[in-house]
Amino acid sequence: MTQTTHQPDAAEVSAALFAEVQHFYGRHMRAMDEGRVADWTGDFLPDAVFVTNARPQPQRGRAEIARNAAAAARRLRKDGVVRRHCVTTLEVRREAESTLVARTYALITRTVVGGRPELEYVCTCEDVFVRRAGRWFIRHRRVLRDDLPGD
Amino acid sequence: MTQTTHQPDAAEVSAALFAEVQHFYGRHMRAMDEGRVADWTGDFLPDAVFVTNARPQPQRGRAEIARNAAAAARRLRKDGVVRRHCVTTLEVRREAESTLVARTYALITRTVVGGRPELEYVCTCEDVFVRRAGRWFIRHRRVLRDDLPGD
Amino acid sequence: MTQTTHQPDAAEVSAALFAEVQHFYGRHMRAMDEGRVADWTGDFLPDAVFVTNARPQPQRGRAEIARNAAAAARRLRKDGVVRRHCVTTLEVRREAESTLVARTYALITRTVVGGRPELEYVCTCEDVFVRRAGRWFIRHRRVLRDDLPGD
Repeated sequence: MTQTTHQPDAAEVSAALFAEVQHFYGRHMRAMDEGRVADWTGDFLPDAVFVTNARPQPQRGRAEIARNAAAAARRLRKDGVVRRHCVTTLEVRREAESTLVARTYALITRTVVGGRPELEYVCTCEDVFVRRAGRWFIRHRRVLRDDLPGD
Repeated sequence: MTQTTHQPDAAEVSAALFAEVQHFYGRHMRAMDEGRVADWTGDFLPDAVFVTNARPQPQRGRAEIARNAAAAARRLRKDGVVRRHCVTTLEVRREAESTLVARTYALITRTVVGGRPELEYVCTCEDVFVRRAGRWFIRHRRVLRDDLPGD
Repeated sequence: MTQTTHQPDAAEVSAALFAEVQHFYGRHMRAMDEGRVADWTGDFLPDAVFVTNARPQPQRGRAEIARNAAAAARRLRKDGVVRRHCVTTLEVRREAESTLVARTYALITRTVVGGRPELEYVCTCEDVFVRRAGRWFIRHRRVLRDDLPGD
């Protein structure tokens, strides 16, 4: 758990930027949940790194991230599972002119037709964004499931 | 499930518009959850259509939507159920100068006094908004519960 | 339950202000969830009042609010519980030039390592904010758990 003192810095992150990051997540998470893996993967830089306490090793590069995402999407489809990444409680910090750190909570639900929806995982997500060609890309993602030992 | 490729189009939806749509949902869903049916229904155009996989037929027109909403509100009150529509993960697309498509996830909770809260439904909502007299109205709503067969 | 008619008033709350309040909650709730009690408490005015249907008496003043928050944080740490306040469905109303009323839903999750996440509480939160020294502070907070008798 982060114990560092955090100073409010809303002034550094404009309303327009905050909304832009929110909108990013709206598109990004929906792409994954609808199985549009290429759309989802396109939000990462080619050399992005994705670490999570649900995997023993970091995923390095867009190609590896895409392979794992495609495999996960196939499993869900095969099992008839609809998964949703419900993103809330955004906090954005500007690290430099073209770098952001965005932190969100994700409530991940799991539903099968005819069943009751379940709250499968609660995760925190910390993304480092960089700006390239007029839009934001994920350079580094860290996802921690609350039910697994931390980093 | 939508399989079409989706291009980022944040440029078409300003931060101000994105926040306005978010705020719309904050008011709109709270009105329903607090049983203020007229407030909630007033957000639909008089000839709005509301389709959902939880009903065999579309609801056509504000009057029919209002009748069904009032009946649902009475049932919840009678059963002592508090229902919340927790809206997350907004994505907004501009279709034309005065038309928007907004997509959200709704986590619908169900609580009775003395009981544990339950995640009753997970839904996706797709609203087509049109602008009239300086504000947005819902012209078409499509709600899909993840636990029911799709459209 | 509020039964008063509510008129849309988006015009009074700019997109910038709406995003600022959202960002406030992103920082504020994360501070509490990460056990940074001083950061969290610093968002209240020194003479803030915090009422909730989970306590028989209002908490009066930042010092009392801080003591209770610190005690809660210790209990969670001791029990190995990670709690998240997932904030959704914001509505903001301007009461005066320097006063806001913000209403949110909070989905409060509870997870222990090795266990399944639980939806512990569903709450509504109504905060009265005042502006001091260029930022917003909570002057009055009212939190109602849906599973407890109301106010």
